[in-house]
Parts: sequence; C-alpha cells; structure tokens
Amino acid sequence: MIARRVRLLGAGAAAALFATAALADGLVDNVNGYTVGKDGEVERFTGLLIDGEGKVVRTLAGKDKRPEKLDFRLDGQGRTMIPGLIDGHGHVMGLGFNALQLDLSDTRSLAEAQDKIRQWARDNPNQRWVIGRGWNQERWGLARFPTAADLDAAVADRPVWLMRVDGHAGVANSAALALAGINAKAVAPAGGRIEMAGGKPTGLFVDAAMALIDKAVPPPQAIERDLAFAKAQDMLIAEGITAVADMGTTADDWAVMRRAGDMGRLRVRVISYAYGIAPLISIAGTGPTPWLYNGRLRMVGVKLIDDGALGSRGAWLKADYADAPGQRGLALLDDAKLKNLGSRAAMDGFQVAIHAIGDAANAQALDAIGELAGTYKGDRRWRIEHAQIVDPADLPRFGQHGIIASMQPVHQTSDRLMAEARLGPARLAGAYAWGSMLKAGAKLAFGSDFPVESPDPFAGLAAAISREDPSGQPPGGWMPEQKLTTPQALAAFTRDAAFAGFAEDRIGSLESGRYADFLLLDRDIMAASPAEVRATRVMETWIGGKRVWVRK
Amino acid sequence: MIARRVRLLGAGAAAALFATAALADGLVDNVNGYTVGKDGEVERFTGLLIDGEGKVVRTLAGKDKRPEKLDFRLDGQGRTMIPGLIDGHGHVMGLGFNALQLDLSDTRSLAEAQDKIRQWARDNPNQRWVIGRGWNQERWGLARFPTAADLDAAVADRPVWLMRVDGHAGVANSAALALAGINAKAVAPAGGRIEMAGGKPTGLFVDAAMALIDKAVPPPQAIERDLAFAKAQDMLIAEGITAVADMGTTADDWAVMRRAGDMGRLRVRVISYAYGIAPLISIAGTGPTPWLYNGRLRMVGVKLIDDGALGSRGAWLKADYADAPGQRGLALLDDAKLKNLGSRAAMDGFQVAIHAIGDAANAQALDAIGELAGTYKGDRRWRIEHAQIVDPADLPRFGQHGIIASMQPVHQTSDRLMAEARLGPARLAGAYAWGSMLKAGAKLAFGSDFPVESPDPFAGLAAAISREDPSGQPPGGWMPEQKLTTPQALAAFTRDAAFAGFAEDRIGSLESGRYADFLLLDRDIMAASPAEVRATRVMETWIGGKRVWVRK
Repeated sequence: MIARRVRLLGAGAAAALFATAALADGLVDNVNGYTVGKDGEVERFTGLLIDGEGKVVRTLAGKDKRPEKLDFRLDGQGRTMIPGLIDGHGHVMGLGFNALQLDLSDTRSLAEAQDKIRQWARDNPNQRWVIGRGWNQERWGLARFPTAADLDAAVADRPVWLMRVDGHAGVANSAALALAGINAKAVAPAGGRIEMAGGKPTGLFVDAAMALIDKAVPPPQAIERDLAFAKAQDMLIAEGITAVADMGTTADDWAVMRRAGDMGRLRVRVISYAYGIAPLISIAGTGPTPWLYNGRLRMVGVKLIDDGALGSRGAWLKADYADAPGQRGLALLDDAKLKNLGSRAAMDGFQVAIHAIGDAANAQALDAIGELAGTYKGDRRWRIEHAQIVDPADLPRFGQHGIIASMQPVHQTSDRLMAEARLGPARLAGAYAWGSMLKAGAKLAFGSDFPVESPDPFAGLAAAISREDPSGQPPGGWMPEQKLTTPQALAAFTRDAAFAGFAEDRIGSLESGRYADFLLLDRDIMAASPAEVRATRVMETWIGGKRVWVRK
Repeated sequence: MIARRVRLLGAGAAAALFATAALADGLVDNVNGYTVGKDGEVERFTGLLIDGEGKVVRTLAGKDKRPEKLDFRLDGQGRTMIPGLIDGHGHVMGLGFNALQLDLSDTRSLAEAQDKIRQWARDNPNQRWVIGRGWNQERWGLARFPTAADLDAAVADRPVWLMRVDGHAGVANSAALALAGINAKAVAPAGGRIEMAGGKPTGLFVDAAMALIDKAVPPPQAIERDLAFAKAQDMLIAEGITAVADMGTTADDWAVMRRAGDMGRLRVRVISYAYGIAPLISIAGTGPTPWLYNGRLRMVGVKLIDDGALGSRGAWLKADYADAPGQRGLALLDDAKLKNLGSRAAMDGFQVAIHAIGDAANAQALDAIGELAGTYKGDRRWRIEHAQIVDPADLPRFGQHGIIASMQPVHQTSDRLMAEARLGPARLAGAYAWGSMLKAGAKLAFGSDFPVESPDPFAGLAAAISREDPSGQPPGGWMPEQKLTTPQALAAFTRDAAFAGFAEDRIGSLESGRYADFLLLDRDIMAASPAEVRATRVMETWIGGKRVWVRK
C-alpha cells in the first residue's frame, strides 16, 4: 500500500512517510552545542538527534539517554556546535563571478593595483575584457578617484573595467571608453554621474552611469554563470554560511539556481529577493514560490533600490556631504515610485526589501513602509537593507510596523573613517546603530553584503560585539554604546536572519523540526574575546543532516 | 535504513525504492488494447499492469495469468485502450489564452463575426482591449482581408485586435491603430507588411508587422497566464492529449510551467522548444534540462522560424504566389543566420526545430540541416516544422540526416482550396505530402498546431488516413496517394511523436517501463472508417497511472 500512497501523495510526501517510519536516524554527540531560543536566551546541549529527512528530532542534554538503534553516530570530540549561519544580505552570483575575476580588494596602493592588473591580463590572454573589482581609493590613500589614464598605464591593448569595492562606482580604461562610445559629449543617465575633467570623461562612472560601460561588456555565457554559482556555494559552505538571502536575483540568476536545483547541485539554502518587479512577476507570478528542492530555494519578495552607497557619495543624505558641498547623493526612486513598486509587490503577498543607506533614503523608506503597512496588513516583515546612516530622529520609527533592519556589521569597521569624512561628527549618532535599532524595537538581521565584504560571518560577529576593526581600532570600539552581546549578535546571524526571510520554521535554530544545518567550530565563541571570535575556524559544515564540508 | 538511503538518494529515488518494494500495483483489465511497436506493427493486449511509479509493468494477453495482490483493479468493459496521444506541434499558452479570448473560428461571414465582436465587448466590460482570434476571410467568402472600418462598425469605443486563424496576420480597429500610433507614415519592419489603401493603413498587419499593434496591448498578468495554462491542460486532457511539444516557449511561458510544476498542477507532459536562442540559453543554459516533475516537463531544444504562413502569403516560395504575382512571401532568416542560430543551439546539444512552410523555406532548412549535420554528429533528430509546401525535387532530402517531418494533417484539409489558389495545380505535388515523406525515409511526427487548429487528435487521424475534410470533401481524398494507414497515422501521434522529442523511452507506447499514459475510447479506431475515427470520443484519460479525466 505504501507504494500506492506514494504515487498518490507524490515523491515529496514519500520522504515524509519514510521519516515517520524511522525517526532518530543519526546522532552527533559529545558537543558543546548552543542555539539561540525564541526569547534570545542561549540554549545549551551536548547531542543532536537527526531524522531520516535531515531534520532535528531534538537536542539532548548530557543526562539524556541516547537511543540504541541509529543509522549513524558521530563523536563531536567536545567541539562547539552552532546553527548554520545565515547571511541576511548577500549577492551569490556576484560572489562567484568576483572569485573568477580580478580581485583588487587586497591592494594597498594604485601602483600595487596596476601591477596586479598587468599580471592578470598576462595570465588570462583569452579573456576579451579585464573585469575586476574591489578597489578602494581610500585604502590606497589616493586623494582622488582612479582614472582611465591610471589603467592605460597598466593595460592599454584590451578594455579594462574595474568596480569599486562597494559596487557603486567603476573605472574604465581608454579602450573600454572607446568600445562603449563614451566621449566628451557623453551624458549620464538619471541616478548616475560621469566624472569629467577639462570637459572630458576621466573614466569614472557612478551608480546608474556604470550601465554605460556595462552594456559594452559581453554577457557571461551559461557555463560561466553555472561555474560562478558553484564557486560561490563552495566559498559560503567553507565560511559556515548554510543559508543566504540573495538580495537582488535577476531572471538569469534564478535560471542558474533552478538549473543547480534540477541537477541536484543546490547546496546552500537561498532565500531570493528579485532584482526589481519585472523578474518578481515573471518568475514568482502571483505570490512567493513554495520552498523548492527540499528547502533549498524560495523567491519570497523583491529588492527595491532607493539610493547609492556612501563611498561613491551615492548615498542619499538629508544635508550635503561634509566632504563635497552641494552633493547629497542619488535619490533613485521618488516617493510615489517607491510606494507604487512596494504596493505592486505587497498586493500579491511578496515581501518588500528596500535598499536605503543615506539618512534621506532611510526616512523615505520609513515613510513608504508606514503608508504600505496601512494598506497591507498582517505579517509583512518590511525590510530596510543596510539602514546605515539614520537620522537619530528616525531611529524610533524602526520599531514600528515590525520593520526589519538588515545590517552588515563589517561595513561599520570598513567605512568608519570614510563615514566620518563624508558626514562629519555631527551626523554619526545614527550611523551603523544596531544597538539603537534593538532598543527601538526593530528586528535585526545581520549579513555581510558579500562580495562587497568577505562573506566570513565571524568577522561580522566580531565587529558586532566590538566595533573594532581587524587591527583592533579604535580600542574599545567606535561608538561602543552600539555594541551587541555575543548572543544578540549570534541571534542576528541565525534565528533573526531566518525570521527576516520567513524561514524561522525551517532554519536558524537547532530546535525540533528544523533542518539539521549546523557547524562544528574550533573554539567556543560564547566565551571568546572579539579577536578570538574573528579567528574562529569552521571545522565542519552540515546542511540538512549531511556533512557538506570538512576542513582539510 | 531505507530512510537513510532516501536522504542520500533524494526524494526522486524514494519513489523508485517504493516501486521495487511493490511492482504490479494496479491492473486495468478487459480492454481492447493496442500500441504501435517499434517496427510499426500493432501489438494487441487485453490488460495493462501498472506499478507504484505509474509506469507500465507489462501488457497482458487474454491467456496471461493475472496477479492476485493488487492495489487496484479496473474493468475496462471491453473498451479500446490506446497510448495517450502526443501532439507533436502545439502552442500551449496560446491555446489557453485563446480559450479566454474572443473566438471567431466558427464565424462563416464578416457580418456574423461583427455580431460576435459586439456581443463579446458587451459581455466583457472590464477588458481594456477586445482581443480575438480565428478569423479566416477565405471561410467568410470575402474576396479581401478585413479592415479597421469593418471592426469599427462592431466596436469603435475600445481597441480591437483580431488574429487570423493561422496567427500570421491580424486586423486592428481604428482605436487600436491610434493607441499603437499607426498612421499613413507607418513603416513595416523587415519580415512584415502593413496593408495600405489610398496611402493609408487598412488595419491589416502581416507577420512581423503585427508587433506594431502587439506592443500596444497590455501584457497579461501572472494570474491570467496561470489561468490560461490551467485551461489549456484541461482542454488537452479532455481531447486525449497526454503530452505535447510546446513549439516556441517564451521565458514567461516557462515560468508559468515551472509554477505549475512547483505547485503540483502540471498534468500534461510538456516537451519544450524555446522561442528562439535567448530564452533557450537563459533557461536551459548548457544543454537540455533534465526531465522535471516526474517526467512532466523538459526543455529539449529551440524553435527557429524560417518563414510565415500560406494563408497570409507569408510562406516563402521559390516562385511567385499564383494569386499574387510579384509576391514570394517572407524569408525571415537568411542562410547564414539560420545556420548560425542552429549551430548555437546544436553546439550545446540542443535539438533544432525549424519552422518551414513554403518550398523555398523548406529548401533552405534542408540546406542548413545538411551543413549542421556535417559538424554536429550523433543522434540529433533535426526537425522541420510543418514541411507543408515542398518542391518534389526536395522530398528525397527529408530522408537524409534522420530528419523529422513534423506535420499537422488537419492543415491539409483546412488549407486545400486556399493552397490551390496560392500555388496553382503545378506546385501541389509536394504539398502536405506525408505519404511521400515516409517513402523518402523521413520520420513523421503528427500534431495539430493548436490553437491554429483544434487540438482534437482524432480529426488529425481522420485527415491523415482519408485526406477528406469533415464534410467528406473531396470524396476519396485530396491527392489520395498521400494517405496513411491507421497504424502509420497512430504511430505518428504516439511512438514517433515521442521519438521526435527524445521521449520514446518514457511515452508514446505501452511497453514495459513507459509511463502508463493511456486513453479509453468509445470505439475501435483500428477497425473504424475515417468518419468514425473523426467521431471518436475519449471516455477516460490516464497519465502516469492515474485517471486524470473521465467523460461526464
């Protein structure tokens, strides 16, 4: 009869039948385990019981009796076990593509970058373009943005196009400018800027203007997309990331993820936010997709981009940039447009995530959510992505309408000096203010914004609890009153990040019925100093009750 | 242990485990069953044994012993059982949308059509546009194409846009022309024609020019797409179609089919051919998708459109139209373009299906396949869709390179008089010549080209064996030497249509291991006259061993 029932219920239900047939399938024992409970308290255990579906049966305390019959039993050798970490804001395809591209993020000077560009071109003779990313003129100690001439000095015989570390500016060499047809008469599109000097383009393009060069770059082929996605999954699993909110999934990105799922190559769980309304409606249509591939993929909502970033002065501010009088950044959506796009998504039950970095953008996003929440009732989990520079007067508003502040702790340590220059001391009271967000009653979700920053979640945890950069600066932390406790920070990378993606019933904690997604660590982060937390090494990564990565 | 294995093997394998646990799950007995064997002979049986996966265990002859233990046993009451019929060339979304739109296919005069347009507009006050299809000025006995003025007389206060029965021409009313900005200065794009009279557009648009009006029509919303797909599936199942080659799947169409699969609402098996290279590469990427949703969906290749249709004089002919001197139709792809697109698909192992109706288009398609086959070896199953008007000198070439002639028998009976007018008697020797195709050694796949024609496969079977129209004209059949035997015609709607879609290992016959997709009919078509075949009624439709439709 079972066979009969399976045909009637479908293969999905088949696994369920099995599971009930054989609970308590495996045990990972002798661990220093903890997970954050729903009230934020740390719940400790020494053993994890996993069923045939790869879900948690229950956690076991030292005194609890262990089952006799098991399919497998693993000795955790006293290691620390925590839930798989969730990156609440990442760009999966971007991470993979970057890993296959020229990486300038470790360069400390323009000269060093030029050497690396020259070398990469030599090593990749068949690449028609030299595409790179990760430069930061602040880090180079350059008092200006790089120019086409700077790049021509490295590579002149091939187009070169290099994204800034924050992805909100790019610099092209002369060959790229020529292929894109950019000259003195070039005009920047709305929401973008072409830097000019002496009436001629310097090679620098900000935000929407970057599209002028992008459109000249040959699109990646399907095989390159699939390789990039596989690479990204490998990197995330090794960092201890078992689930990610992909913040801006294009139709092509989605096709890559579906191919991976269809071929059984989808490993990391992806909570997808469509890159605008068009792919949202075309792909998901009338509402969020169901969880696909046994909880590996779901499109739950849309990402709307309200402004640019701080480094490129694209963040939309209420007052002028302290270091660029007359500039207030880029308002990419006016009030009506933002509300209309949000409404179009919310009317079909999609979640709305609004990218807002500057204080003006955050105020606009809060206004829009206030109005939308009046129309679209129920459990909506409105998200504001980054929520970086917030007018202190607006902070309390994050406690309304169940708003989720989706923040990236490492941005604070990376941006600190730059933020002080852009904003001046007076406007920093609401900057990277996750402590204030919690006090205001906002829900937090932490992430890395990879590939803008490294996906390493332990760097994020360390920043969240210390507000010190990797070199320990400033001692005691920048605006230390904003520090979180380790349990608060861990919650924001696990349970609360799951909640932010409507996934708390499946991931983010090691409670009964959740997927057995967990890590074995080389140290106890609950007892560790920020520096020790930062140095944590993942020894094993498990997803759905299966070991998917082991440190060699 | 089973639970453990399931987790390792995945849910798909789960069903397999079950199946082996319980073969011989059900029996449909006491039937007059037949299926076409691989040598084209009819294999008869009286019982069908189905396993827990919904696949055929084996067919049983009257003398064979029946198993004792079964989950279900059904008495076929002596009814005729045949494999589920496969439509080798249909447009699934088009069928559904048409069913939700104004249908003019039964109108016998312009006046009758005008009444129907008026009535539909009255019945659908909330529809911003009156979109319809199915008109045929030949059937109306109109010596000309309809005009905007004809439509204005019916509905003037709303835009009206009506597709010809063959989908290769459309007529718009004045409101639609205004919204699309079409006036005396309008210029037709390459591959299209705007009919002019007295220097002004008459309202008629042919092939590529139809896009000028289409772009003014608001796109359907996701809910409308999903409803259309559900409607199409209901219609197909009721006609006895259990699988279809969707000949031109757009990215939006694919998203609809995936939504249906993800929600368990995919019933008919769809073999998808992308609508050109762009969606093929974006969706399937590096090669045909695997079979998805337990054999319900697969993208296997691409459709390339080489010319228009005969009725609208879009079919590309070697010599002038007999009834339009100076016109030779529309060559939509030049030799190089056709070969390049075919190569782009074939290099990644995709199947190539070329729409070719006129003799010039067919010759070009044969040339292109000849060159592609020299580069891309192996089992390629090059398809030519329609292969309607073929120069007798080119007929033998269909026997080379394993070419599949994907033809639609009902087109012959619908087009006969029109074809004689368009071509004159001299050029008809290779028209709708499925008999000659078989003799030449081509493989046949039959379909209906729905919604151009009704999806009813029994109308197709009747046309294939009689070459008489529903009223029995001409008696004895048009070019009767082209008639097929009933087994040949049934093969082209079952086993050979499956082969044409690389699916013969799963569908198209009721042999061991194939899906139990079958029909119970109200008569024995093998013994029936063409008129009786045409009148056949499907009593039950089964897909994957489950009854999905029963005649009320």
